[in-house]
Amino acid sequence: MKIRCSRTSLANGISIVSKAVPVHTTMPILECILIDASSNSISLIANDMELGIQTGIDGEIIEKGIIAVNAGFFSGIVRKLPEEEVDIETNVEEITIRCGKARFNILGKEGRDFSYLPDIEKDEGITVSQFTLREMINRTIFSISDNESNRMMTGELLEVKNGILTFVTLDGHRISIRRTELAGEAQDRRVVIPGKTLQEVSKILGGDTEKQCGIFFTDRHVLFEFDRTIVVSRLIDGEYFRIEQMLSGDYETRMSVNRKVLVDCLDRATLLVKEGDKKPIILTIGDDSMALRINSAIGSMDESVEVDKTGRDLVIGFNPRFLLDALRAINDEEVDIYFVNPKAPCFIRDTAETYNYVVLPVNFTSVG
Amino acid sequence: MKIRCSRTSLANGISIVSKAVPVHTTMPILECILIDASSNSISLIANDMELGIQTGIDGEIIEKGIIAVNAGFFSGIVRKLPEEEVDIETNVEEITIRCGKARFNILGKEGRDFSYLPDIEKDEGITVSQFTLREMINRTIFSISDNESNRMMTGELLEVKNGILTFVTLDGHRISIRRTELAGEAQDRRVVIPGKTLQEVSKILGGDTEKQCGIFFTDRHVLFEFDRTIVVSRLIDGEYFRIEQMLSGDYETRMSVNRKVLVDCLDRATLLVKEGDKKPIILTIGDDSMALRINSAIGSMDESVEVDKTGRDLVIGFNPRFLLDALRAINDEEVDIYFVNPKAPCFIRDTAETYNYVVLPVNFTSVG
Repeated sequence: MKIRCSRTSLANGISIVSKAVPVHTTMPILECILIDASSNSISLIANDMELGIQTGIDGEIIEKGIIAVNAGFFSGIVRKLPEEEVDIETNVEEITIRCGKARFNILGKEGRDFSYLPDIEKDEGITVSQFTLREMINRTIFSISDNESNRMMTGELLEVKNGILTFVTLDGHRISIRRTELAGEAQDRRVVIPGKTLQEVSKILGGDTEKQCGIFFTDRHVLFEFDRTIVVSRLIDGEYFRIEQMLSGDYETRMSVNRKVLVDCLDRATLLVKEGDKKPIILTIGDDSMALRINSAIGSMDESVEVDKTGRDLVIGFNPRFLLDALRAINDEEVDIYFVNPKAPCFIRDTAETYNYVVLPVNFTSVG
Repeated sequence: MKIRCSRTSLANGISIVSKAVPVHTTMPILECILIDASSNSISLIANDMELGIQTGIDGEIIEKGIIAVNAGFFSGIVRKLPEEEVDIETNVEEITIRCGKARFNILGKEGRDFSYLPDIEKDEGITVSQFTLREMINRTIFSISDNESNRMMTGELLEVKNGILTFVTLDGHRISIRRTELAGEAQDRRVVIPGKTLQEVSKILGGDTEKQCGIFFTDRHVLFEFDRTIVVSRLIDGEYFRIEQMLSGDYETRMSVNRKVLVDCLDRATLLVKEGDKKPIILTIGDDSMALRINSAIGSMDESVEVDKTGRDLVIGFNPRFLLDALRAINDEEVDIYFVNPKAPCFIRDTAETYNYVVLPVNFTSVG
């Protein structure tokens, strides 16, 4: 194999596919990036068997071929090369990288041990803007669980129903939901995507509202296609939680509050809560103001925040971090929070329900 | 005690004195910052018994007093307070912090357990600009040793001799020297300051060439005084290494090279050297160019760099990181490097000798 490519395009491509290179593995071939110049264009591929990424780079193929190269070394070398054309040439398993006056020789691996991405039929799919997809992921992903004992909770529900795309995560303490209307026809679908896949996809996606991302489904895989990149991931098997029954529209108390003011106050409150500590913040909601109080081994904090309340007065306790995570995932200046009673979850949602964050309360009489 | 101060001044003061709060300690009082409002101004003090820092903050004393407060909690709370006036009031050991609508209660400690800074007579000292002091520290500190078994190497020599201020560090593989002329009269002096002290001083110092820093000495302590801050540190006892005999002016080969080009090349070479690996980079110095070659378990790199050489041709090996550290501590576009033979150290120095970096070679026939 002999290729010549621009350093920038190469470095960019390596950075994209490296997201599918596992940090720890006992299989050396998984630590590799495959440089595939066997056809008419140059691709980089990495695949940890659950998540696979392929991307095209600019360059010229002088002699066709493929080679697998350790991702860490390759990425380190390319990052430090001068800003010139890069020549990569292989002699069996030896790889020579030339750029400017520098020449590196490292050992690669033959491409035939490498697992290519599974072939996915792109006949059933949807299209969303890269910006929207990234936002929907980033604003829900924080409430997936990292507890592998309930694998379903480590994934994110992607649902297409009546032309509406919904993303849902939940971890047993809270639910995060984002919805958006799809342009054009779309078949109903319900799949659970590993959280890690979406985290990596959101890092690669540009923030461009004009550029699109195609999402395609099979029974076992999901495929994201955008720019010159393809991300293929296995799905999580099984039925996702029935969340509809947890989402009541009824409420006894409704409160409007300035989001930033409440975020700053909760942020201060978390100072008094050490990791693993279950001290709740107690909200005492009156007509015009809400008192917040937290009391921990470190000390106590009291603060009051202006609110616009309708319905009953209420005293309710929450893990301040869960409220904080939800409020930080919202852009609106004012948010509406709906309560039923001190033992029922609260709902932070807009009227169009483009978002709905559900947080379970903490029974503070027993713990605080 | 009852004081009112600006959040910015308080946060800034906490950030300065926190540098003398030890990360790990079995004595809770050392984890504290003392708020001293016992006289007519407000000071913050922290002291880990080796390094002590005191700084003044803007504020109003409503009721005189002192209190010690856990540095971590105090700093966390103040950082997250809104940008308003902060009221701090104590009731025996209970501290109430009020700011805007927020009120925190935390427990402090009585001030009397706290170790104040030692009293230093400021009769013998020198003055340098804050900028110069920070530069001299930052451009030498990297070659102190962190091996406590040779305590002298963990310190930095500060020498005043014939009106010249010199900073020296060495770690057994290299020596870093920076010199500057002092304005005004100064008594000769030779002290060894713990590296940690200088690291913290350089972080607090502003980069202002107009502002001065006073440095004062006793037999056991050094004191830095700048802006509203005092840093007091113990000295390291004993005689520093006699470095004069290691600094020969003779050479057989002298080479001028573009610093950035050489830095980039060495930086690439370090990719092939894992931590703890002793693989040297071999320099083959000819009249107009220098070939660099490194060969490790990972692979090999070859590169050539244009140089302007006088004297003998030379082949010599170095740890690339040591050359890199020295070259990165220099600002000049072109540097001169002086060599004697493959077993003798090289000297990277300017003609005025404001800097002199000495790096020992690696015997590459035995290791490479």
